[in-house]
Amino acid sequence: MRDLTPLLAPRSIAIVGASSTLTALAGKPVAFLRDSGVDVAVYPVNPSRDEIGGYTAYPDPSALPEAPDVGLVLVPAQAVVAAVEALAKRGAKAAVVISSGFGEGDRAEGAAAQARMGEIAREHGMLLLGPNTLGVHDYVRGLPLSFVWYGRKASDPAGTVAVVSQSGSGMTSLSDRLLDAGLPLGYGIATGNEADVTVVDVLEHLAEDDRVKVIAAVFEEVRDGTRFIAVLRRLRELGKPLVALKVGRTESGSAMVKSHTGALAGSYPTLKALLRQYGVIEVTDLDQIPGMVAAALLGHLPTVDGIAVVTNSGGAAAIAADRADELGVPLAQLGELAQGKVRENLPAFAQDQAVGNPIDVTAQSMQRPFSMVDIVDALVEDPAVGGVVHAVPSSGGPAGGQWVDRLADTVHSSPKPVVSVILSGKESDGLRQRLRDRGVPVFSSPAAAVEALQLLRRFGRAVESAAQPAAPAEEREPIPLPATITENSTLQWLSEYGVPVARQLLAATPEAAAEAAEELGYPVAVKISSPQIAHKTEVGGVALGLGDAASVKAAAQQVLASAAAARPDAVLEGVTVSRMVTPVLELISGIHIDPTFGPVVLLGLGGIWAEVLGDVTMRGLPLGPDEAERMVDDLQGAPLLRGARGRTPVDPAALSALVDALARIAVEHDGELGGLDLNPVAVTAEGELVVLDAALFRTEV
Amino acid sequence: MRDLTPLLAPRSIAIVGASSTLTALAGKPVAFLRDSGVDVAVYPVNPSRDEIGGYTAYPDPSALPEAPDVGLVLVPAQAVVAAVEALAKRGAKAAVVISSGFGEGDRAEGAAAQARMGEIAREHGMLLLGPNTLGVHDYVRGLPLSFVWYGRKASDPAGTVAVVSQSGSGMTSLSDRLLDAGLPLGYGIATGNEADVTVVDVLEHLAEDDRVKVIAAVFEEVRDGTRFIAVLRRLRELGKPLVALKVGRTESGSAMVKSHTGALAGSYPTLKALLRQYGVIEVTDLDQIPGMVAAALLGHLPTVDGIAVVTNSGGAAAIAADRADELGVPLAQLGELAQGKVRENLPAFAQDQAVGNPIDVTAQSMQRPFSMVDIVDALVEDPAVGGVVHAVPSSGGPAGGQWVDRLADTVHSSPKPVVSVILSGKESDGLRQRLRDRGVPVFSSPAAAVEALQLLRRFGRAVESAAQPAAPAEEREPIPLPATITENSTLQWLSEYGVPVARQLLAATPEAAAEAAEELGYPVAVKISSPQIAHKTEVGGVALGLGDAASVKAAAQQVLASAAAARPDAVLEGVTVSRMVTPVLELISGIHIDPTFGPVVLLGLGGIWAEVLGDVTMRGLPLGPDEAERMVDDLQGAPLLRGARGRTPVDPAALSALVDALARIAVEHDGELGGLDLNPVAVTAEGELVVLDAALFRTEV
Repeated sequence: MRDLTPLLAPRSIAIVGASSTLTALAGKPVAFLRDSGVDVAVYPVNPSRDEIGGYTAYPDPSALPEAPDVGLVLVPAQAVVAAVEALAKRGAKAAVVISSGFGEGDRAEGAAAQARMGEIAREHGMLLLGPNTLGVHDYVRGLPLSFVWYGRKASDPAGTVAVVSQSGSGMTSLSDRLLDAGLPLGYGIATGNEADVTVVDVLEHLAEDDRVKVIAAVFEEVRDGTRFIAVLRRLRELGKPLVALKVGRTESGSAMVKSHTGALAGSYPTLKALLRQYGVIEVTDLDQIPGMVAAALLGHLPTVDGIAVVTNSGGAAAIAADRADELGVPLAQLGELAQGKVRENLPAFAQDQAVGNPIDVTAQSMQRPFSMVDIVDALVEDPAVGGVVHAVPSSGGPAGGQWVDRLADTVHSSPKPVVSVILSGKESDGLRQRLRDRGVPVFSSPAAAVEALQLLRRFGRAVESAAQPAAPAEEREPIPLPATITENSTLQWLSEYGVPVARQLLAATPEAAAEAAEELGYPVAVKISSPQIAHKTEVGGVALGLGDAASVKAAAQQVLASAAAARPDAVLEGVTVSRMVTPVLELISGIHIDPTFGPVVLLGLGGIWAEVLGDVTMRGLPLGPDEAERMVDDLQGAPLLRGARGRTPVDPAALSALVDALARIAVEHDGELGGLDLNPVAVTAEGELVVLDAALFRTEV
Repeated sequence: MRDLTPLLAPRSIAIVGASSTLTALAGKPVAFLRDSGVDVAVYPVNPSRDEIGGYTAYPDPSALPEAPDVGLVLVPAQAVVAAVEALAKRGAKAAVVISSGFGEGDRAEGAAAQARMGEIAREHGMLLLGPNTLGVHDYVRGLPLSFVWYGRKASDPAGTVAVVSQSGSGMTSLSDRLLDAGLPLGYGIATGNEADVTVVDVLEHLAEDDRVKVIAAVFEEVRDGTRFIAVLRRLRELGKPLVALKVGRTESGSAMVKSHTGALAGSYPTLKALLRQYGVIEVTDLDQIPGMVAAALLGHLPTVDGIAVVTNSGGAAAIAADRADELGVPLAQLGELAQGKVRENLPAFAQDQAVGNPIDVTAQSMQRPFSMVDIVDALVEDPAVGGVVHAVPSSGGPAGGQWVDRLADTVHSSPKPVVSVILSGKESDGLRQRLRDRGVPVFSSPAAAVEALQLLRRFGRAVESAAQPAAPAEEREPIPLPATITENSTLQWLSEYGVPVARQLLAATPEAAAEAAEELGYPVAVKISSPQIAHKTEVGGVALGLGDAASVKAAAQQVLASAAAARPDAVLEGVTVSRMVTPVLELISGIHIDPTFGPVVLLGLGGIWAEVLGDVTMRGLPLGPDEAERMVDDLQGAPLLRGARGRTPVDPAALSALVDALARIAVEHDGELGGLDLNPVAVTAEGELVVLDAALFRTEV
């Protein structure tokens, strides 16, 4: 871990390229520091001025009276490398390069200069933030290292929330919104083009900063997948939530990221699955972040999936219920005890009815100002409830100010997350402010509140899963990759790892194929077997649905002839014969070697829908004890695997065994394994799994 | 259409049950009217007071000095029917029943009283709003018929936006938010339990009110499907956008609606498809509505799908691009002309690069304050661009105030929608206000802005589609339903309507079945044929994949025996024999008779995925000229039908012919047709359609 203190809490700041026009881009940082009133040493560097903004100016970094904690670099692009080098030589602990025109855009010289400044920083052990960064905002002291600063400070306990973003506008916009939501922000850090300090460095630092309780990140590229995963694991271990917006999820978004920062957005499907695995709270819009951070800041994680909703607006109740169903969040079935306590607080006409969920206390609650809070108290006691949404249209009646205190007490004393929704707009700004002042998360929509509880639950689930004791690793020798890789040898090898594979016989001649078919029973499939032929269909190397010995023999002859004609270079071992299996469902599975994150185990739905919907998830290694189940959670087609509409569910133990075997293979053959595709993995009518075809790839050397 | 003027613009208001405690629920309406300063006659009705709030009080409605335009009813539930009757007898033109405790909840007497007050209203030709309503907010005059009122008035031209909601909090919250967004609101109308006046009545009135340009609706139930569809068609004809939030879309949401208002939420999948068909702008959260209404209020509809984005934030560009890809919104490929004009306004380092989209002018644009507006001007001229998103992080540089005027001129003069995004929070409230004052729609997220343009485009597409001349209806005689309904007779009848069906031969005996198979070629399927047996599989009445005459004969014997054993009551005509078809894709289609909306034509994807994903859409009648294509647009699996990954696309003419034939059948057999399921409709490798099985149902009598 790199200690970023010189960047985040500098005591001395050089401003290289400072302008004496304090309203100009290169003059603003001087003015901001002066106006902050914070006791830091400020050293403008400008060869043609003696003084700027009341501070003594120096002609160049070598002339500075001390080695500064940080140097802010504002000079034109072509002068940046020299300025960075001068700062490094003067012993600056850190540099923040605001200037742009480097890795972004298409110019090779820009990228080269960017690489050079990173090298200089590392040679001198100096931290370098940027280039093309909006710098650092310190909201605790009210101190910016930036030319954009709104002069805002955070509420207490300032410093418990931190923002990191590659994009400068992501950092400033998000910080501004978090402050609007009354959140105790500490830092806003923009990493820009990341010549040296990356989002991962910042996350590592923030993970170990005990004052920071929640991190919000907007990022476009992950440069070091291994360290990224390591810091996610560390955050999960610490139970410190990371709320993340990944930008560049799609093809068009990635193209923008490329032109914007010169970064490659990487494979989003893999990243998305890994974020889920390690408990990152992923959102897809800036608008979601303030509410999500406020809810995460409670530090209370749901331990069950079910939620409860209490409101005096029937409309809000239905909106919450709709979103819960749409997201697959169960509305908790309340226990008898909770129902009894809730009933005491319902209007007279509801006294003899069953207590549902959401609970609508109706507008009559305005005559009993504490009834909703009393209901919240009952709900958090119910073991079926993981989190509670409290929704009111506006001021919530005459005693608005009083129930806020009662609700806030519950919010903080309950081990479960309780969040509030205010449906109206500016009319309720006062109420919203009172709730926020008391640390109650406030949403503007019941739907967003439900979603936030779901995301918190996912984080809680990841934390729980990681805390479970892993099964003791068996001491087993790795099973070497097959010497000659064919479908047949791969299936054989997989079966030695305990993977259930279709029984398949290798036959060197058409006559042997017919004999094999007689042994297996009909109908059978005949496929070419050759270490040089991975895509058998493309060479006419597959015949399906063969019903008797004569057909098998003819098909084997045909397959051998086609393959020989199409691939005269290939060594033909013969054909494989396997009994046809008609799956009730086809899955795909395997191992993918991600260029950023290394080997991941893959599971998804097969067939044409997989192609169109891409319903596939992945997991990094090592796997948690219940990871197969959590992988199924990720899939849109999860109901199919779990027995929707009277189907036999896929045996969870079989799924778990498959995924675990793949994880073992990935670990044992790390480096030599280039990929493994099991496609299809048939689900039988009995819910068992059988790998029907497999393709194994060695690392290309 | 019912004229709702007495409810919306009353000149005389009786308040039945007015309290002399003006801060109590039943006193507030008097205080609100008094404090409004509007010149209306106010008549408190209270038998134990002579004066309330400075107004002369009357003992009961019969004593009123004039027949009031409207009577506000605030008495306890048990006294409401009498109060309504008294108002009706005094000649009140309308009544607003605020009191609750009627159709909502489980009590039969409440529902009966609610029905009774509706009858009284209709007997006397009086309009009745409610019960259980928050009434009417008139934001033009600043006059509430309600006990909830924030005292706000709308900006000019007040009255161009109207809100209607069944839920009271939906009405008040949404109105508050629209006012926050600076929108020229006219009315907020809550219809409550709808004993008489319904959301449909209100929509009919607002459709014909020329001052109203955009309507926002939150509704839970549609009571009169036929009139609802008629008003949607009228709004589409007028080009007047309806932004709608349907509450109770899911099972849990519907259950809440039931307990909340006593209403049944109806079939959401049908409603959703009809909203799409008729161009309703459906949103799923309250938070979406203000931005969507502001964008709709421009009155400019995209005429092509492509959008363009210009921003000085790389992060915003990527966020917009991500959402566009995720929603399937194309980012327009800019023409040469537009590219040239855009390039003139890009920073020097981008001058020699291709102009992409989104266009990131980078932070350097802050030195050229009008560059982004100049780019917007170029974009709206490009025929490939349907709408433009303009996104800035915050104040957008020193000339913030000046470019707002320039942008606003473009926003209003362009025939295309142009919307703005401000990424920061309160810091930019001033800028936001300036934009809104000039009528520029402002979003807080690029993602939401992209989505709004997509929804506007859908509305535009519906308006265009409806404006196309329909093909002249052919004069054709209806083809009578088969006298005896079996799969075989249904397929035969469908083929007379031009629907492509699988060739199927009816065989009375096992021997005849074998002969039929020889004629058709193998493999074949054998199925029981009986007018009493709709679900053939359940009686062992289906045998598939039969490869020779002997198997066919044996299967036919078995099928006949099983069916006879399972259904001794059934008349067995014999079996049908059909050639097995292996579809590359299975669709489902047919006619569904919706209890609310009547016959709708259905199209969707078949197989197990249809079961789990429910990927089905519907259309009401008559169909527009390009409705089959728009139905495919609705489907998640649309890429499969359109030839994703090298597949042969489904022939659009065949799809259109199928849907048109079903529409003709639905119209010609309206009343006698209880339903028609075509399942599966096979797509062949050549992209042709063949109905493999069909079930026809007569209306139950």
